[in-house]
Amino acid sequence: MNFGTVAILGPGLIGGSLALALAERGLAKRLMIYARSPHALDAIRTAGVDAELTGNPSEAVAEADVVILCVPIEAMAGLVHEFRDALKPNALVTDVGSVKGSVVRDLEPLLENRALWIGSHPMAGSERAGFAAARADLFDDATVILTPTQKTSRDAQHRAKKFWTALGSNLVLLPPEKHDQLIAAVSHIPHLIAAALVNHAVAFGDLDLAAGGFRDTTRVASGSPGLWEEILLANNQAVGGQLDHLIGDLQAIRIALKNPDDDEAKSVLLTMLKAANDARSLLAAKRPKPS
Amino acid sequence: MNFGTVAILGPGLIGGSLALALAERGLAKRLMIYARSPHALDAIRTAGVDAELTGNPSEAVAEADVVILCVPIEAMAGLVHEFRDALKPNALVTDVGSVKGSVVRDLEPLLENRALWIGSHPMAGSERAGFAAARADLFDDATVILTPTQKTSRDAQHRAKKFWTALGSNLVLLPPEKHDQLIAAVSHIPHLIAAALVNHAVAFGDLDLAAGGFRDTTRVASGSPGLWEEILLANNQAVGGQLDHLIGDLQAIRIALKNPDDDEAKSVLLTMLKAANDARSLLAAKRPKPS
Repeated sequence: MNFGTVAILGPGLIGGSLALALAERGLAKRLMIYARSPHALDAIRTAGVDAELTGNPSEAVAEADVVILCVPIEAMAGLVHEFRDALKPNALVTDVGSVKGSVVRDLEPLLENRALWIGSHPMAGSERAGFAAARADLFDDATVILTPTQKTSRDAQHRAKKFWTALGSNLVLLPPEKHDQLIAAVSHIPHLIAAALVNHAVAFGDLDLAAGGFRDTTRVASGSPGLWEEILLANNQAVGGQLDHLIGDLQAIRIALKNPDDDEAKSVLLTMLKAANDARSLLAAKRPKPS
Repeated sequence: MNFGTVAILGPGLIGGSLALALAERGLAKRLMIYARSPHALDAIRTAGVDAELTGNPSEAVAEADVVILCVPIEAMAGLVHEFRDALKPNALVTDVGSVKGSVVRDLEPLLENRALWIGSHPMAGSERAGFAAARADLFDDATVILTPTQKTSRDAQHRAKKFWTALGSNLVLLPPEKHDQLIAAVSHIPHLIAAALVNHAVAFGDLDLAAGGFRDTTRVASGSPGLWEEILLANNQAVGGQLDHLIGDLQAIRIALKNPDDDEAKSVLLTMLKAANDARSLLAAKRPKPS
């Protein structure tokens, strides 16, 4: 299988891993990589990736059959504005943003009747960022969520599926808003809380006493603050609403802790620990996906 | 070095690992293991640990130079009542409980003028429990906190230090109440929150979409619910008080998420993410201790 000319815009962890994976699997006849910063292009040149590098997004997409937006969410609409006149009419355009409602809302009208557009979210990454952290196997067995809307063509959906499947990913289809709700719960809220836990431990504890459990619980807090600020703000409705619920749950636990001799209070605590243990054990029994 | 006859009361993950570590390093002339349940004793017999097994705690401690209480916190005082008449007057008695204020308060008067007593907390473990999870290297390079009080003899402290150092552990000395505050922040609160995050993800998300980050953040939630209920209740003052602060922090973040276009609100979010990133990166740069 071959996807013709593929343009990767933004060769960070995800974009860089895409370039390595496409090259390793021989999935692109020609690979175009756009980065705004000459330093980023130098890093890729030094790594010896077989691709044409450019600082001009229109040049990157001009002959592309597939265009993957791997820049920060905030930068996407501006970049699409820059290059959309250069797109081939049949080009498939997708992105890898961690929030889909706002991305789809912004990009869909910009690309209507100009290209085949669909949103993608590969659930792969790491707390490390940049091309230096890129891995050719990042998408292998990862879950990729496609977020078609009523305006998404069958062709766009079909081609995006083939693209990610060829990289070894497992596909899930969700409407953008549903995606943002579910991912708030399994990724954005946990990230926010991990960061809050680190700051709490610094304020009230001593990180020299932290054992492996604390390291695991807070590993994601090493992720890029700027990137995560952007994600949390772009998905602020879902994250904020769910944070209200989580705060409510913690307040109920707080009340239970005030009454350690009260059987009902103890039962609140044990019930929540048991429920978490049951669900977490089911998750542990499943084959882990790449982080 | 040799600690003479060592009695381990309660051969679960910690007690079992102690038995394996003492045997491997040849640190005990004679190893006595007490477990209430015949099944637990059978498991150790089957594993071929070189120790004398008994279901009678007085028999276990009668000739012991060192006695290590590895039973659940709630069971400690009752067990000490059972065996204390059988103790040698010079025996060193310590425990491995994750909460120290209540343990020291309960046990110190029971052992006064009967043995040398000091509280210990090896910061080692795993989300797995029981002898089946025991490892001879569990204490190697782990931090062990000793919690002397004004009543602790220099001899007790000195011998406990030698004991844990011989197992490869690094020692920290803290008053029991200070221990409970610091450990609430780096262990008890993170555990509670990890459990709350799993339940939240089940209610609002889809665990099939959870990637490696979620697995890490919530790994500790696979720990024994009964054990953790006990720990959280025994340390309810510190955990509860700190939970109030954490809830306050989350409420401030909630407000920031309501105003995604407000610069001040954005700055709250970015500041907390950056602080967490800085602290977590310092932690990542240190050599990890066994979990």
